[in-house]
Amino acid sequence: MKNTINRIKPADKTTGNEVSAYLDTLTKPKGSLGRLEDLAVQLGEITSSRFPEVTPPGIIVFAADHGIAKEGVSAYPQEVTAQMVQNFLNGGAAINVLAEQTGAMLEVVDIGIANDISNEKLINRKLCYGTANFLEEDAMSKEEAEASIKTGMEIGGQLISKGAECIIPGEMGIGNTTSSSAILSVISGEEPGTLTGAGTGLSLEQLKHKQRIIEQAISRRKPDRDDPLDILSKLGGFEIAGMTGAILEAASRRKPVLIDGFISSVSALLAVKLCGNVKDYLIIGHHSQEAGHKTVIRILEKQPLLDLQLRLGEGTGAALAFPLLEASSRLLKQMATFSSAGVAERNRP
Amino acid sequence: MKNTINRIKPADKTTGNEVSAYLDTLTKPKGSLGRLEDLAVQLGEITSSRFPEVTPPGIIVFAADHGIAKEGVSAYPQEVTAQMVQNFLNGGAAINVLAEQTGAMLEVVDIGIANDISNEKLINRKLCYGTANFLEEDAMSKEEAEASIKTGMEIGGQLISKGAECIIPGEMGIGNTTSSSAILSVISGEEPGTLTGAGTGLSLEQLKHKQRIIEQAISRRKPDRDDPLDILSKLGGFEIAGMTGAILEAASRRKPVLIDGFISSVSALLAVKLCGNVKDYLIIGHHSQEAGHKTVIRILEKQPLLDLQLRLGEGTGAALAFPLLEASSRLLKQMATFSSAGVAERNRP
Repeated sequence: MKNTINRIKPADKTTGNEVSAYLDTLTKPKGSLGRLEDLAVQLGEITSSRFPEVTPPGIIVFAADHGIAKEGVSAYPQEVTAQMVQNFLNGGAAINVLAEQTGAMLEVVDIGIANDISNEKLINRKLCYGTANFLEEDAMSKEEAEASIKTGMEIGGQLISKGAECIIPGEMGIGNTTSSSAILSVISGEEPGTLTGAGTGLSLEQLKHKQRIIEQAISRRKPDRDDPLDILSKLGGFEIAGMTGAILEAASRRKPVLIDGFISSVSALLAVKLCGNVKDYLIIGHHSQEAGHKTVIRILEKQPLLDLQLRLGEGTGAALAFPLLEASSRLLKQMATFSSAGVAERNRP
Repeated sequence: MKNTINRIKPADKTTGNEVSAYLDTLTKPKGSLGRLEDLAVQLGEITSSRFPEVTPPGIIVFAADHGIAKEGVSAYPQEVTAQMVQNFLNGGAAINVLAEQTGAMLEVVDIGIANDISNEKLINRKLCYGTANFLEEDAMSKEEAEASIKTGMEIGGQLISKGAECIIPGEMGIGNTTSSSAILSVISGEEPGTLTGAGTGLSLEQLKHKQRIIEQAISRRKPDRDDPLDILSKLGGFEIAGMTGAILEAASRRKPVLIDGFISSVSALLAVKLCGNVKDYLIIGHHSQEAGHKTVIRILEKQPLLDLQLRLGEGTGAALAFPLLEASSRLLKQMATFSSAGVAERNRP
C-alpha cells in the first residue's frame, strides 16, 4: 500500500498551462466553453498529456454487506445486495445501461457480500461475509481494512492494464450510507444528524433511528480521525475501502478518477487522508441528494459537474457525467484553431 | 405557418402517467434517478410513446448576419459569421466535435449570411444578405420574418423525415445576442440593462454601449410585444426566426426540442408566443452565462439540465446535454424490473 501511495505525484501544472494556452487558440470566444475548459486543463495536469485520453472509462462496482444493516438502518433487506449484484451480472441495472451508453468497461467485485454468488462474470475477492455490526464490535480488523484497500488497488490496476483511461468507482451494499455517514462524521467533526440522509428511502422516524445508531456507534468505537485504517476497520465497509484502493491506484498511474455520489466521495476522502496529492486526480461527477454529500465536497474543495437530484449509487452519477470528460478531451483534440480555420480573431478593444 | 401551428397538440399526460408508474417498477429506489425520471416522463408525454426514442438527434445551425453589427456591438468583426460557417462545413468547430460524439445529424443553413459561400454541404436558403441595421430601420419585412420561420419549418421537417428523433436548433451570427436581448426586453418588459450580456466577450464600456443601442432601437422601432412577427421583423434576425420555425415544426410532429443557450431560448420564447402548447416540447439543455438567459428560462418556467458556464452557442450546450436524454430513454427501455430481476422490494415501514 505504501509503495503505491509514494508513487502518487502532484498535478503537472506545466502541462496544464500548455493546455490552457492552446484552448485560447481554438475557434471559440476565449473561455466560452466554461467548465469544459477547466476540465481539459485538469485532465492535462493529471495525465501529463496535452491531448489527454479518457476513453474507455472503467467502472468498478465493489459490493459488500454491512452488519449494521441488522439495526434497521436501510429501507431494503440485506439480501438485496446479492440480488442487485446478480442484476448487474445479468445487465439489468442502471449502471449496466449507462456503461453500455458510454462504452465503459464494467467490472463487478464481490469484496464482502454476505451470500455466495456463483457467476463467472463476477470477480470473487470476498474478504468476509459482510462486516460485523459496528454498533456492537469493530466492523473488521485493521488487517482486513488494509487488505480491502489492496484488493481495490489490484482490481483498479488490472482494469487500467486492460485499457481503462479513467476510473469510476461504484458500489452496492445495503447499509453503506450508514457506514459512510459515520466515517464522514468522524473525519469532519460534524454531528451525524446533519450528515445522515434517507439513503434508499427511509421515513423521517427511520432516519432519526439511523442517526441515533450512528451517534451511539461512534461513541462506542472511538475511531481515530487521523487514521483512515482505524476509521475503516471500526466503521466499515469492505466496498468503501475497495473504492479507496482503486482511487489510490488510479492516481498513482496518473489516470483521472470520476467520483459518483456520497459513498464513493467518502472513499475519495479516505484516499485523500492517506495521500493529499490524490485530490488533484478527483473529478466529482454529480451532486447527490444524500444529505452528507455537500460536506464531503466542501472538504474536498470540489464542484460537481452535474446536479440531477440523483441518489442511486452504483457509479451512475459518474457514468452520466462521463460524456463531459469525453467532450472536453475531444474538443481539445479535434477543434480547429483560428489560424488553421482562417477565422478572424477579436476586434481590438 | 398557421397549419403547422394548428397541428401542435398539448403533452400526452396519459402516456406520461404510464411512464411514471413503470419507472417505479425498475430496479432502483423510487425516484432515485431524479431529473432523469422527470425527463423520461416528459419524453413520454411529447412522443406519446411509453418507450420514447431520442436518437439520432438532429442539429440545425442557422447562420445569418445582423446589420446592427455596424454599431460595434460585438467583440468580433462581421466576416466571422461566414468564416465560422466555413469552419462548420470543414468540421473544425465545437459543434462538429459534439455532433460526432453524440451521433447527431448536423445541417448548416445559410438563411441570411452577408457573404456568399459556395459549398455543397451548405443548405443555401439565403433570404437576404443580412438584416438591416435596426437602429436605423426595420431589420426585415414582415413577409421576410414569416418566410424565415417557414424556412426553419421546412429544414426541421426534412431532418425529421431523414430520421432525427430530437431537434437541436443552433445558430451563428455576429450581433445576434443584440437582437436577442432586444427581443427579450420587448417580450418581458424588462430594461435592456439587465438582459444584455457580454456576448462573445465585450469590455464593460462596450457592454454599456450595446445596452444604449438596444434601448434606442426599441424606442425607435416600437415593436408590438404581442406580435412575434412584428418583433422579429423590427429587431431580427433571420437565424432567430429560422430556429423558431424548426421548433414549431418539431412540436407539430411530437418530437422533443433540446434548446441550447440564450439565443435559441429566445427563439423558443417566440415559438411559445405563437403557440402556447410548444412549451410542453421544450427541454433546456444548459444554463448559459449570457445575462438574459435566466429571464427567458423564468418566463418559460423551465430548469436547464446543465450549468457549465458555457457561452458559445452553435447548439453546443444542448449537444452536451443530449446524452442525458439518451440515458433517460435507455434506462426506461433497458433496466430490469424488480420482478423480472428477482430483487426484493423495500421493507414495509
